[in-house]
Amino acid sequence: MNVLIVYCHPESMSFNAALKDIAVTTLTEQGHEVRVSDLYGEGFDPVEHPRHFETRHDNQRFLPLNEQRHAHDNDQLATDVTREIERLHWADLVILQFPLWWHAQPAMLKGWFDRVMVYGGLYSGSRRYDRGVLSGKRAISSVTAGSPLAAFGPWGRGGDISRLMYPTHCSLYYLGMEVLPPQLSFGVQGGGLSYQAEDAFQQHLANLKHAWRTRLGQLDDESPIPFSGWNDWDEDGVLTLQHPLRWR
Amino acid sequence: MNVLIVYCHPESMSFNAALKDIAVTTLTEQGHEVRVSDLYGEGFDPVEHPRHFETRHDNQRFLPLNEQRHAHDNDQLATDVTREIERLHWADLVILQFPLWWHAQPAMLKGWFDRVMVYGGLYSGSRRYDRGVLSGKRAISSVTAGSPLAAFGPWGRGGDISRLMYPTHCSLYYLGMEVLPPQLSFGVQGGGLSYQAEDAFQQHLANLKHAWRTRLGQLDDESPIPFSGWNDWDEDGVLTLQHPLRWR
Repeated sequence: MNVLIVYCHPESMSFNAALKDIAVTTLTEQGHEVRVSDLYGEGFDPVEHPRHFETRHDNQRFLPLNEQRHAHDNDQLATDVTREIERLHWADLVILQFPLWWHAQPAMLKGWFDRVMVYGGLYSGSRRYDRGVLSGKRAISSVTAGSPLAAFGPWGRGGDISRLMYPTHCSLYYLGMEVLPPQLSFGVQGGGLSYQAEDAFQQHLANLKHAWRTRLGQLDDESPIPFSGWNDWDEDGVLTLQHPLRWR
Repeated sequence: MNVLIVYCHPESMSFNAALKDIAVTTLTEQGHEVRVSDLYGEGFDPVEHPRHFETRHDNQRFLPLNEQRHAHDNDQLATDVTREIERLHWADLVILQFPLWWHAQPAMLKGWFDRVMVYGGLYSGSRRYDRGVLSGKRAISSVTAGSPLAAFGPWGRGGDISRLMYPTHCSLYYLGMEVLPPQLSFGVQGGGLSYQAEDAFQQHLANLKHAWRTRLGQLDDESPIPFSGWNDWDEDGVLTLQHPLRWR
């Protein structure tokens, strides 16, 4: 299996880096080939911007989707975007490793979606969802958050984590990928900000690492999050009234 | 009333720019003072990064929250962050104007949250939610999306828009703001990608502009989205079992 880890954290001594390293080691030991997109390390530019398009489809007006399609069709995508697309096509499994900042992905990772998932290349009107370009691949988000688990439950003040993850899962499925349940590491708040005493905090981190390592050895047994697909929708892209998912 | 419009689009001839201009004109005509944070125009850097912290709290290990607090407490925040914070304190109403890219804010706007909402300055453990630093202010997201309305309903393939907006609303409320329902402009897909014929598309855009202009004249009548607060939570930050919001 080819595994791409998209790693997004500015600090190489962070817990996110440790979880990334665990994935590299564990999956390599299992005989898989692993590559890492180190977004901070490689200085990825997350801002979709005219500066990334040398030859423009429209020099007057910058419409990102049209420029993406034009650049893709003419082999003129930016070097970093081309590199990330090649990595995605190579991969059977994609792991996104990131901290939850402001209820979502850090800007760096958000912009990886904005720039790399080019219209005309990684999706089109007819190649989306279960007919997506990346069909057959699987994806996992491995996410750290500072607050403890209780705060992210359905009634927690941190925001229901299943709702906070929803946009990311929608994006991965839009590309055609099977989305496995996220790996959630709560209570990861270092530098004296932890809710716990230092000993208990270190034990907590060790437990989180162990859980990730264990899970990575059992991914074959997992089922993806269910999404509806083209056969379930009417012509407006809405789940038909008779569909069982509406009445679950 | 002081109004800050945080405008995030790379193209000055875009529909997002038109909605921003409508807000500036309409609110100014009503006698309000309006300022615009033009994130693309001002070249805002959305990436939280050690490069923004000249004097570090910890030179070995970059922990963003600790560095934010240190820089805030020592008046050493980056110039652009200081400017955005001053604008936020000045404002009574904050309007976020952005296109929905990959089921969320563009990286540029996401990074505005990551960098500007500094720990120790715009929030702390005790100054969040209904005790937040920006309490008493109101916020609206004005969002454009390419797909039509039907796709963003609860059963639409685009993803339920109320779930897609949830992380942004959580962030605004976390800061203490009252969050008004978003202004949603669907089917905004220019450059030959529209689902409609050109005439109908132009009429659709005109209708969307009219709706925004009309709403901006009636904001005083609106009620914010209800969130639970400190008095509703147990010591773990979870809504108590007796709370009526759990049984709605």
